[in-house]
Amino acid sequence: MSNLSSANDKPLFTPGPLTTSRTVKQAMLRDLGSRDGEFLRVVREIRAQLLQVAGLGDDYTAGLMQGSGTFSVEAVIGSTIPPQGKVLILANGAYGKRMVAMARALRIEHTVIEYPEHCSTSAQDAANALARDPALTHVAMVHSETTSGLVNDIAAVGAHVKTFGKKFIVDAMSSFGGIETDWRAVGADYIVSSANKCIEGVPGFGFILARRSALVETEGWARSLAMDLFAQIKGLEGDGQFRFTPPTHALLAFYQALDELTREGGVRARAARYRANYQTLVAGTRALGLREYLDPRLQGHIIVSFLYPDDPRFDFKTFYERLNERGYVIYPGKVGSANCFRIGCIGRLFPADVQNLVNAMRVTLDEMLT
Amino acid sequence: MSNLSSANDKPLFTPGPLTTSRTVKQAMLRDLGSRDGEFLRVVREIRAQLLQVAGLGDDYTAGLMQGSGTFSVEAVIGSTIPPQGKVLILANGAYGKRMVAMARALRIEHTVIEYPEHCSTSAQDAANALARDPALTHVAMVHSETTSGLVNDIAAVGAHVKTFGKKFIVDAMSSFGGIETDWRAVGADYIVSSANKCIEGVPGFGFILARRSALVETEGWARSLAMDLFAQIKGLEGDGQFRFTPPTHALLAFYQALDELTREGGVRARAARYRANYQTLVAGTRALGLREYLDPRLQGHIIVSFLYPDDPRFDFKTFYERLNERGYVIYPGKVGSANCFRIGCIGRLFPADVQNLVNAMRVTLDEMLT
Repeated sequence: MSNLSSANDKPLFTPGPLTTSRTVKQAMLRDLGSRDGEFLRVVREIRAQLLQVAGLGDDYTAGLMQGSGTFSVEAVIGSTIPPQGKVLILANGAYGKRMVAMARALRIEHTVIEYPEHCSTSAQDAANALARDPALTHVAMVHSETTSGLVNDIAAVGAHVKTFGKKFIVDAMSSFGGIETDWRAVGADYIVSSANKCIEGVPGFGFILARRSALVETEGWARSLAMDLFAQIKGLEGDGQFRFTPPTHALLAFYQALDELTREGGVRARAARYRANYQTLVAGTRALGLREYLDPRLQGHIIVSFLYPDDPRFDFKTFYERLNERGYVIYPGKVGSANCFRIGCIGRLFPADVQNLVNAMRVTLDEMLT
Repeated sequence: MSNLSSANDKPLFTPGPLTTSRTVKQAMLRDLGSRDGEFLRVVREIRAQLLQVAGLGDDYTAGLMQGSGTFSVEAVIGSTIPPQGKVLILANGAYGKRMVAMARALRIEHTVIEYPEHCSTSAQDAANALARDPALTHVAMVHSETTSGLVNDIAAVGAHVKTFGKKFIVDAMSSFGGIETDWRAVGADYIVSSANKCIEGVPGFGFILARRSALVETEGWARSLAMDLFAQIKGLEGDGQFRFTPPTHALLAFYQALDELTREGGVRARAARYRANYQTLVAGTRALGLREYLDPRLQGHIIVSFLYPDDPRFDFKTFYERLNERGYVIYPGKVGSANCFRIGCIGRLFPADVQNLVNAMRVTLDEMLT
């Protein structure tokens, strides 16, 4: 590991880990004790700032959970559904299905409404299911499906969940901080995201914004010790400490990342930058003759799935590697029904970076297809 | 976060997160994609080197698990005990009891033999329990109990576990890499530790060395999606990727830390440095009139519990804060039966650092007790 510089690191056009600022990474050049006053202040301020980013007040509280974002989603699924509870999961991609896999592993009663990966979830379907099955206690869904890039209408579903008096879990992994969202209007009881997405920190933990009135009922429901959400938040609100060793360096980076989000102008400005990245990307790729997997009306500005060019000479592995050699990291596809690759618009990247990528794609496709 | 230097960071005389080298932290100044070839090579080499550190061969495999060390312990408890299995847990401290709490949360049948925190676990007790209860399938215990600093005789227990044909789980959190151990002789099926202990990396993940012949039977047993050990290792051995986002920066730091462990002279040299730290510590504290909680014959060189001075003027909070102001971070006690504080001997610290701490303790105690 002699190369200590990040100057030559390739920009990551991926759904995360992302390209972060140099100053975010430099914040990790410290070893703080996990019970140290300075560290506990950082944790407290992170939790307060997350609520501010969401535009939520004291009726919510912020939990932090070690591990990847998936650990935070599992912490919510496994901790907040009562022993006799049942969750309705709306799934139109791998991350919706991942919640189904969690419910299955945790032996939690569940019903799934599954959609093709190029279709939105339907609020009416959710309402019908809630009307039909009074055993349902929770509804869970993904906001921005990283599988495809599709953004679901969580507010429309949330309105029905509220009408039926149920709890609403939103996996906002790749949207939180990157898509302007009126979280009050959505009315989610649990909002989950991760350090290494639109806040532009490094991976190591996720976070959960929980409605206090919902969380307070969940004591003792957790199906895990490490991922017990109630106990975790109780600890953070008590002596301010994590119950188990926190990723201190990733938290210092995240604190810096939140500061940089504020200085950029908050979620509005960041979403505008990501949208500009997205627009630069699709303007460029359309000119190259590439087609997006999704109908643009369903497409978010976080990540885009592109269909493989309809040409037998195209080979994704070669395309990926040649772009990599040119200094650009893209991402394989994840939709099941079509051959796609993905390009992320998030992280410390700007339209000029995206334009450079498009230019590299042009050269690479020219090499491959002519 | 304007102070980006670690030059002024206080040495951490704690059980972790620890003081790490500057070069270990600098290895985090990069953003690598989690599917990038360079990153996958780092992960593969880390897994190979962990087996080398343990002196184990191809009949074992190394898993890496996001989260703190506790997540890795829970991954083993929750993934490797069959649905009808039953685990005997030997507990003489908080970390032994934590495995009991895991078994309870995961609804796994278990029996506990509990000892006072100043007493070793007994191999004979384990043998008797195994003889008495044929339903037992697994035995779990802690090697170095960070609660007190006591080092249990895992080889003695392991011999009985093998005789009875059961599986053996060892929580080697604070010992792995810091105490010379003949892991072949111990015969553990699962050895668990964490990045931020004696390998001197930063927190963010744990690791599990698993005997292949045991692991291969465990498919489908996990009581969690995120912490499914079999699936995690299958992924790492398949395409080399983590199933869910890895803490890329912490892994780069760990790769550097493993290199520095080798250059120091491996586990033997590192254990010798820690032992020298320990000897410097107790020579100094005994001269100050402080008494250790444990009988020295049970005491390891990882962390030491000290009884509060028998003086009504002693107040731990004041003691801690004054040492902190002088630039030294110590740790509160954790034993239930006595008022203690703890001082760790591990991390990027040398006998001279320990002597500085002892000198600061002398001045602080003089202020407080005279």
